[in-house]
Amino acid sequence: MSQIRHALSIKRADDFAQWYQEVISAADMAEESGVRGCMVIKPWGYGIWERIQRLLDDRIKATGHDNAYFPLFIPLKNFEREAEHVEGFAKEMAVVTHHRLIADGKGGLVPDPEAKLEEPLVVRPTSETIIGDAMARWVQSWRDLPLKLNQWANVVRWEMRTRMFLRTSEFLWQEGHTAHESAAEAKEHTLRMLEVYRACAEEDLALPVIAGEKPENERFPGAVETWSIEGMMQDGKALQAGTSHYLGTNFAQASGIKFQDRDGGQQLAHTTSWGVSTRMIGGVIMVHGDDDGLKVPPRIAPWQVVIVPMLREDDGDPALIAYCERLRAQIAAQTALGEPVRALLDIKPGKAASKRWNWVRKGAPLIVEVGQRDMTDGKVSLLRRDALWAENGKPAFAAPSLEYAAQSIPAMLTEMQASLLASAQADRDRRITRGVNSFSEIEAAFSDEVKNPGWVEVQWSKPTGAALDAVAERLKALKLTLRNVPADSDPADGACVFTGEPAVERVLVARAY
Amino acid sequence: MSQIRHALSIKRADDFAQWYQEVISAADMAEESGVRGCMVIKPWGYGIWERIQRLLDDRIKATGHDNAYFPLFIPLKNFEREAEHVEGFAKEMAVVTHHRLIADGKGGLVPDPEAKLEEPLVVRPTSETIIGDAMARWVQSWRDLPLKLNQWANVVRWEMRTRMFLRTSEFLWQEGHTAHESAAEAKEHTLRMLEVYRACAEEDLALPVIAGEKPENERFPGAVETWSIEGMMQDGKALQAGTSHYLGTNFAQASGIKFQDRDGGQQLAHTTSWGVSTRMIGGVIMVHGDDDGLKVPPRIAPWQVVIVPMLREDDGDPALIAYCERLRAQIAAQTALGEPVRALLDIKPGKAASKRWNWVRKGAPLIVEVGQRDMTDGKVSLLRRDALWAENGKPAFAAPSLEYAAQSIPAMLTEMQASLLASAQADRDRRITRGVNSFSEIEAAFSDEVKNPGWVEVQWSKPTGAALDAVAERLKALKLTLRNVPADSDPADGACVFTGEPAVERVLVARAY
Repeated sequence: MSQIRHALSIKRADDFAQWYQEVISAADMAEESGVRGCMVIKPWGYGIWERIQRLLDDRIKATGHDNAYFPLFIPLKNFEREAEHVEGFAKEMAVVTHHRLIADGKGGLVPDPEAKLEEPLVVRPTSETIIGDAMARWVQSWRDLPLKLNQWANVVRWEMRTRMFLRTSEFLWQEGHTAHESAAEAKEHTLRMLEVYRACAEEDLALPVIAGEKPENERFPGAVETWSIEGMMQDGKALQAGTSHYLGTNFAQASGIKFQDRDGGQQLAHTTSWGVSTRMIGGVIMVHGDDDGLKVPPRIAPWQVVIVPMLREDDGDPALIAYCERLRAQIAAQTALGEPVRALLDIKPGKAASKRWNWVRKGAPLIVEVGQRDMTDGKVSLLRRDALWAENGKPAFAAPSLEYAAQSIPAMLTEMQASLLASAQADRDRRITRGVNSFSEIEAAFSDEVKNPGWVEVQWSKPTGAALDAVAERLKALKLTLRNVPADSDPADGACVFTGEPAVERVLVARAY
Repeated sequence: MSQIRHALSIKRADDFAQWYQEVISAADMAEESGVRGCMVIKPWGYGIWERIQRLLDDRIKATGHDNAYFPLFIPLKNFEREAEHVEGFAKEMAVVTHHRLIADGKGGLVPDPEAKLEEPLVVRPTSETIIGDAMARWVQSWRDLPLKLNQWANVVRWEMRTRMFLRTSEFLWQEGHTAHESAAEAKEHTLRMLEVYRACAEEDLALPVIAGEKPENERFPGAVETWSIEGMMQDGKALQAGTSHYLGTNFAQASGIKFQDRDGGQQLAHTTSWGVSTRMIGGVIMVHGDDDGLKVPPRIAPWQVVIVPMLREDDGDPALIAYCERLRAQIAAQTALGEPVRALLDIKPGKAASKRWNWVRKGAPLIVEVGQRDMTDGKVSLLRRDALWAENGKPAFAAPSLEYAAQSIPAMLTEMQASLLASAQADRDRRITRGVNSFSEIEAAFSDEVKNPGWVEVQWSKPTGAALDAVAERLKALKLTLRNVPADSDPADGACVFTGEPAVERVLVARAY
């Protein structure tokens, strides 16, 4: 290929972090709001989130959960009673202290000293404690269990360094909360929801992930077990894209979720919680984006096909629009990936070429341009976002007939969804180094000479407490973290790279977002 | 009818306010959260909200709006710059002043004095100012207009006296915000969205409403025109169920939403905003509820048909469940009101009769009970929530064959949706008194002797300023308010009941929530 003039000004290979920001801006997904740490999610970014919501919500409902809604504000005392939990969150919460503003006499407004709250309220960073309170009211007997709830909500964790979608003070998420009769059932449910997340990431977002248990030092505050799905970004870093926690009876104890068991005794319930957030959109960008912008996997694309008529502001326009509308209707009447195809006819003011490049940067899977000549020939000009450039360095337009284009689009979308996943999976697998047997090999794998190092899988003795902290410190010096213990990894058969003791399992080591 | 033993303990006629609370509790829709002014929306209540969201969202998208998401937190300065707006809201907002908690040394937590925000943040009571800021960034030219946005979000208005769904400190809503080139276009859009609300209320919620313009004293802070839809509750009071505002250039001025017009000049955009909230659910309860609980109109019922097998915990149960599952599958394969029928097979532990009454109180449109004898006869026992009682005071079960029941259910749901609206409309129209020609007639209509007075429509001269305030004061003494000027009312042809001057239009007067 030669002389391709890419649609972005920054290439991934040159500055991945800057490239990420440019994609978000060029694809019109989000922007800084002017409110510290909070972003505005613009229609294209929010449209992708709505698609993820819809697909994941179906999966959550199919596993027997009901949606509900709990208060934004959580009393301080809720945080005081679960010690480990508050330790994990206390440092970064938005606190409401007043319920009224008054004029300051200088043309401004100030919190009214008369309206100071007796007990400050925390803007929820997560809802275990407030939902625990509700569960304690709702659960009396084993017949009330399992109780399986989910909430779609905004949450706030005050962040000093923010990056859009990946880490913002306010973000959108879903948080599932369940209560069960036994530890075994709750643990099984924790893994079941982890599998729901894996399936959603891979099947809906075309985002390959590795599901596994987080080491003790990376657990959610108050959890007994924390599991995650981890995706590899194109810069080799890991992104934790979702977590599922078995909370034991810790939160049940703090909230008083007790039930009469089948033998008439009183027991504490075993609870779980699990969440994914708008962070997943950051993962989609960093896995599927290229030097021309975003590529949105068809299943989560707000519009899968965008039709751009090449309007000339003359008498020919109405016929051209009618021709395009015929195409749109034929496409929209079909089904791809189990849903009606989402096709947009874009007749906003503006030049067709500039609109084309906007849709390329936004990553619409298929762009169909139609000019007067196409119409005369009964044809359309079709551009696949995942095969944008021809050998000659020009956009790789195909020129099928209108009917053939309309008929073949569902199969193209299906194929594109599968190939985005397959290619991301191959890229990732190629960059996980196994058979790393010593700490010096880890150092070598992540030395400054190695560009874009990926992950390493090592065997370890699963140290705990201070010994684990020591491991984490050694890794931190290399800017590395323990990601998770893949659920499907081979059994250990060697020595721990950190302690030299016999290894008990394999764990992934990587730089991370 | 005789000896009906209703499913609630409180009758509407005895204590409407208490009855309302009992419906919410008995239908398991919501409850107090323990956090001041905030409720927990339980699965059945939230499921109704999800249905309203889905249907209204489709209508909002069909009128060309994109969803987006804006920050929860709004800087104080945004409120300072639109004087009328802040005046309307300043008294009741949640203010975030700190971003961290620390231990108080006594086992508790307090806001960290080191982490006091330089500028306090307000938890959004509505988003005109923050969305205005974004519009100012996004709008440059007339080509960028109209800009049509919508947001689904939680908002907070500190309330002293709360009532579930009707008035809570935190509530869920949708807020639309648009910017236009001209006053005419913006006003037209204000009315278009009012019509969307009317259609959603009447067609989806079966909630008859009167659409009209609010008098000046009832306008949204900062608006030029405020329009509303008003529904009549069974106690005769009015519920404002949605509003649509033409904001003129007031917010564009405050936020700097300017554009280059078609002649190359600079102009301020004309903006609109409009919202409906979880309050609508309160309207559904108060319009469709009866002494047996809620009746959910089929279009917004999370489950339209609930099948309750009469399980005996013996060997016959599996066959009975299979028979019920066959019924469920036949029902779910059909379409009613444009969507697949939502049918639930309820096999949770518990006695069939007790489950039946739970579903009656929740207001599931159709309840199908199936016992061993029904199965032997190839039949089912079918109960319509809108025709619950037979002449003999017993539940009015029909006993169709399984196949006949499955086939006829879509038509029953369609008919029920229409008849709920028609009957509420007839009740309302019967209770609007027209031809009231003097203030003393208003006094008489709302005197203590009149039980459940409904509304009166009067002619008025549309006074403004102090003269209008005087009218509002006179009405307030009777606990009355001006609701709206119905868009489709007859022209005025008499004298103003308040001022005696020639009337210019007709306005509705009522007690209100």
